[in-house]
Amino acid sequence: MDILVSEVGPRDGLQSIKRAMPTAVKHRWIRALAASGLREIEVASFVPPKLLPQMADAAEVVREAVKIPGLTVLALVPNMRGFQDAVAAGAPKITVTVSASEAHSRANIRMTCDEAIESARRIAEFRDSLPEGSRPKLEVGVSTAFGCTLQGDVDEDFAIRMAVRAAEAGADTVGLSDTVGYANPAQVKRMFKRLVAELGDKAGGAHLHNTRGQGLANVVAALDAGVSTFDASQGGIGGCPYAPGASGNIVTEDLVYLLESMGLDTGIDLAKLVEARRFLSEGLPGEPIYGHYPDAGPAKNFRRAVESRAAETLSPALSHGRG
Amino acid sequence: MDILVSEVGPRDGLQSIKRAMPTAVKHRWIRALAASGLREIEVASFVPPKLLPQMADAAEVVREAVKIPGLTVLALVPNMRGFQDAVAAGAPKITVTVSASEAHSRANIRMTCDEAIESARRIAEFRDSLPEGSRPKLEVGVSTAFGCTLQGDVDEDFAIRMAVRAAEAGADTVGLSDTVGYANPAQVKRMFKRLVAELGDKAGGAHLHNTRGQGLANVVAALDAGVSTFDASQGGIGGCPYAPGASGNIVTEDLVYLLESMGLDTGIDLAKLVEARRFLSEGLPGEPIYGHYPDAGPAKNFRRAVESRAAETLSPALSHGRG
Repeated sequence: MDILVSEVGPRDGLQSIKRAMPTAVKHRWIRALAASGLREIEVASFVPPKLLPQMADAAEVVREAVKIPGLTVLALVPNMRGFQDAVAAGAPKITVTVSASEAHSRANIRMTCDEAIESARRIAEFRDSLPEGSRPKLEVGVSTAFGCTLQGDVDEDFAIRMAVRAAEAGADTVGLSDTVGYANPAQVKRMFKRLVAELGDKAGGAHLHNTRGQGLANVVAALDAGVSTFDASQGGIGGCPYAPGASGNIVTEDLVYLLESMGLDTGIDLAKLVEARRFLSEGLPGEPIYGHYPDAGPAKNFRRAVESRAAETLSPALSHGRG
Repeated sequence: MDILVSEVGPRDGLQSIKRAMPTAVKHRWIRALAASGLREIEVASFVPPKLLPQMADAAEVVREAVKIPGLTVLALVPNMRGFQDAVAAGAPKITVTVSASEAHSRANIRMTCDEAIESARRIAEFRDSLPEGSRPKLEVGVSTAFGCTLQGDVDEDFAIRMAVRAAEAGADTVGLSDTVGYANPAQVKRMFKRLVAELGDKAGGAHLHNTRGQGLANVVAALDAGVSTFDASQGGIGGCPYAPGASGNIVTEDLVYLLESMGLDTGIDLAKLVEARRFLSEGLPGEPIYGHYPDAGPAKNFRRAVESRAAETLSPALSHGRG
């Protein structure tokens, strides 16, 4: 597999929708997503049910999802309390967010940027104190790394510094998030190049939005900078509830089609992925879902990356003489 | 200006819609598009009105559009007859299409690929025989250069060879078109690099579609290959009427926003560009139009490319100390 597509619909998507998807449908949806070949799914957010009732079943969802063979189950937490709950539920990988915008940090997790780094440090220390074999991987996502709806500009040096500090605090990987759909391809390439230069193996993935239609353009720029993990949401559901005006994760179906058509192996079966959309209609009837690929279907000349490679291996002449 | 955005809505867009936009509205729409800063607009197609009644007023539209100062008026023609009509109407730049797919060539212009090159050669000779000062620029677009809904695969060597032959036949520039929305960024980068290597200054622009959500991703790849002219259609209207299943030019508004946010100067005022959409509603009530930027508006940290550069020039410190 060349690229890891990390599905965030069950967390990022569902927490942005006021209605809650029934827990049983969540289970079935996550199973269907995993069955399409997705290797990592962010399934829940451990936050007070008062704030996000859609995530009240987080522990139950994690406990069910970890039974799926070969799947990395990811949970998002805002703080130590959430982290401990996620560990108790058995989440093998946990994401903590810090923000590159003071305004967003306060609105989203009620901490200053410094306090968020300090919180990540304490979480990492707690994680390290756990018995070997029960220590989850710790990922930090730097929110609003490309701009913020509340404060506008976000200083690029500051955003990279937050990523470095998060790694120093103990994160295994640190990614950059375009939380509000402000990023452009030039900026994405510049920032991820810096992230890779600063963090090496600890440089994490890209969480990009399609708010202004620029989502997949930013993916191409991130690929150029060496990024190999991308978040996306089935049907493009989701956004950030604390960033007014923001909407639109990139659509997993369109992302996978783009990557595979470029010859990059995602391990995902597109037909099965599209088939999993039915659980969105079942669990959230009438909710708008997005995506071009599900409507247009594959191009006649489309081959999955693994098929293209097999053809090249079997017969180099064949792959040239097409048409 | 770094990038030339060539608006194709009045031709490519309108000819894909069954209803005809009233001629008077076309005039006002084209004026509004030009007033936003667009420097090149493909305004009409010179084809038999029996085939495309929407284009029956082509000569009238060209005659009116050429009065707009600073605007390059482009007309599309399928053959010598159309070329002569476009010249008579005073079009200063004329596009002839050839196809990289035999099946599409026959369906679209009723010629084999060889016959299409021969036709382009005769058109170029006719153009050269015109009195100096009345010779239009001749552009050739290679249709289905990235795949074809009728024949599936299109051989990349064959597509590039068609471009080279078109240049040898007398075209001033030769561009590549993803007529049916099959292109992916890896292919776009590879093909335009080859085009530039083969044709040098005669390498033309990219005509890309968004059928599978990949339009702006392909733009980023084409930019990487050195492409500096992009076709796009206001509201994303249009496609190719002879390629079943194809739809969706890239949206001019989203393209311009992407380019400007990357620091690339298009010379276009986004607010005025969006304002021009009202003529689509006026001339074609109820017709669906597309685009993310018109809904989302600019990011708070958005600056036009020229503004960013002015800020850098005035105060290098300022552009660093943002946020």
